[in-house]
Amino acid sequence: MKTYLDCIPCFFRQALESARMSGAGKKGQKKILNELARILPKISLTASPPEMARIIHGMIRDMTKKNDPYLAIKKKSNRLALNIYPKLKKKIYHSRDKLLMAVELAIAGNIIDYGVKNLLNVEMELAKILDEENKAIKKENKTIFDYDRFKRDLNQAKTILYLADNAGETVFDRVLIEEIKENYKNKKIIYAVKEKPAINDALREDAFDCGIDKLGEVISSGSDAPGTVLSLCSKEFLKIYKKADMIISKGQGNFEALSRTKRSVFFMFMAKCSVIAKEVGCVIGDVILLYHSEKGNNG
Amino acid sequence: MKTYLDCIPCFFRQALESARMSGAGKKGQKKILNELARILPKISLTASPPEMARIIHGMIRDMTKKNDPYLAIKKKSNRLALNIYPKLKKKIYHSRDKLLMAVELAIAGNIIDYGVKNLLNVEMELAKILDEENKAIKKENKTIFDYDRFKRDLNQAKTILYLADNAGETVFDRVLIEEIKENYKNKKIIYAVKEKPAINDALREDAFDCGIDKLGEVISSGSDAPGTVLSLCSKEFLKIYKKADMIISKGQGNFEALSRTKRSVFFMFMAKCSVIAKEVGCVIGDVILLYHSEKGNNG
Repeated sequence: MKTYLDCIPCFFRQALESARMSGAGKKGQKKILNELARILPKISLTASPPEMARIIHGMIRDMTKKNDPYLAIKKKSNRLALNIYPKLKKKIYHSRDKLLMAVELAIAGNIIDYGVKNLLNVEMELAKILDEENKAIKKENKTIFDYDRFKRDLNQAKTILYLADNAGETVFDRVLIEEIKENYKNKKIIYAVKEKPAINDALREDAFDCGIDKLGEVISSGSDAPGTVLSLCSKEFLKIYKKADMIISKGQGNFEALSRTKRSVFFMFMAKCSVIAKEVGCVIGDVILLYHSEKGNNG
Repeated sequence: MKTYLDCIPCFFRQALESARMSGAGKKGQKKILNELARILPKISLTASPPEMARIIHGMIRDMTKKNDPYLAIKKKSNRLALNIYPKLKKKIYHSRDKLLMAVELAIAGNIIDYGVKNLLNVEMELAKILDEENKAIKKENKTIFDYDRFKRDLNQAKTILYLADNAGETVFDRVLIEEIKENYKNKKIIYAVKEKPAINDALREDAFDCGIDKLGEVISSGSDAPGTVLSLCSKEFLKIYKKADMIISKGQGNFEALSRTKRSVFFMFMAKCSVIAKEVGCVIGDVILLYHSEKGNNG
């Protein structure tokens, strides 16, 4: 997916937030916004938003010398999510369709996203997910939800590549992966995180902190883009990407990067901005389980 | 009030919206954002947001040759608000404290604001105001509400300068002014609009369309800033500004421009962004009736 003009104000918002997270003072923050204003007109909008974000956050890293400004946030997100892990399991245990509940929770966990919304009170959002009577997600928000196809493909797949999104969300991924391993025997799970810090995206250490390594192989995309931008991924990753029987892709960033890919992917994310909502044909707040076929078409 | 760094992403959002309203194509819109990126680092943030917005919208006007991009929106807002005028009057008629209800409605009308929120469905918002049982505004949103002081000053004032904000909102202003004239005899009302197009701010024609001219004198600030920036106002306006016994100032833009003024002002607005909320010490969505004393202090 290309970058829309509406993404530009959002890049400035993200840059300001990241500058603050990096400990820049007011003058430093202004300098970063000025630098963004200088470089942005030079970047072609044919690049996807994660490619743009990678350049912007790289520029901030160079200016502030802060390698991983979201480290504390990521650790906190993991901790918060691990705290509610027993409740997530209980929720699934009491569900009629356990896999469906696990899928819904995995998407609900995508609310932990500091790239899109900065004022989001993650603790409050997580409490909301757990608080609702049985359902993790309201029916009216499931406008695009290819669950039947998901189950069918899951049944046939041997190797599943799972593209991670944010730290903390990894615990919700774990719950889904556990459910898959429980219900479908002999599945090989490969969980792909980012190679280096990319906003609050999960890295290897987050996957390990959240116990994913006990369920499958943890690899990296080979890149520091906050989305799976194939042209930036490692050869090793690309080999697995091409060969995997099934891909589960979490989050907006991965969707933005892969929305035109030529292989089949199940995208799972919450639609958090008007640009994405327009792109997939839903409204903000919708929970998306979108089957993208190998022909590059949706549906 | 000075411009905060958080205003910068918002300027890009506003510029993009205004470019679209001006009929610019995608290339034209990008050109405008590029031009904003070029000039913004050069402008000192000691200027208030309305001063910045004036420069930005002036730049867009020069580039698109569109003098009044919000003209249709303004006309529509007037029409929508005039349609519900009888219902507003009825709501007041059935209230125990009629002046209070009129004040609340005047602030609620500030929701008609295309400068701050572009996706706001004004029709829907207006329906909400009317729909609620009797109250226009929830009590929990009235965190800063100097109504007693407002009544006291209103009682003593002979000449009241009323600083208009948006078109459409003018109908809500009319309702308050009518209530004032009904309850307090011999008040002279001077209603000040903007001299030239400034986003969707009311101009003379909007005041006339909404029937304000039958209740008082309609003047202009002498400027095209979307807020009463005193250094840009006409001598005639400033004379009245200094001499008026009481000033009622509507909207965020006027607050942003006058928050440090050395005379007493009653600010009425809805807090629509985090910057304003932080500045006055409230949360987004709060309805503010703030007494600002002549010493330049609030409270």
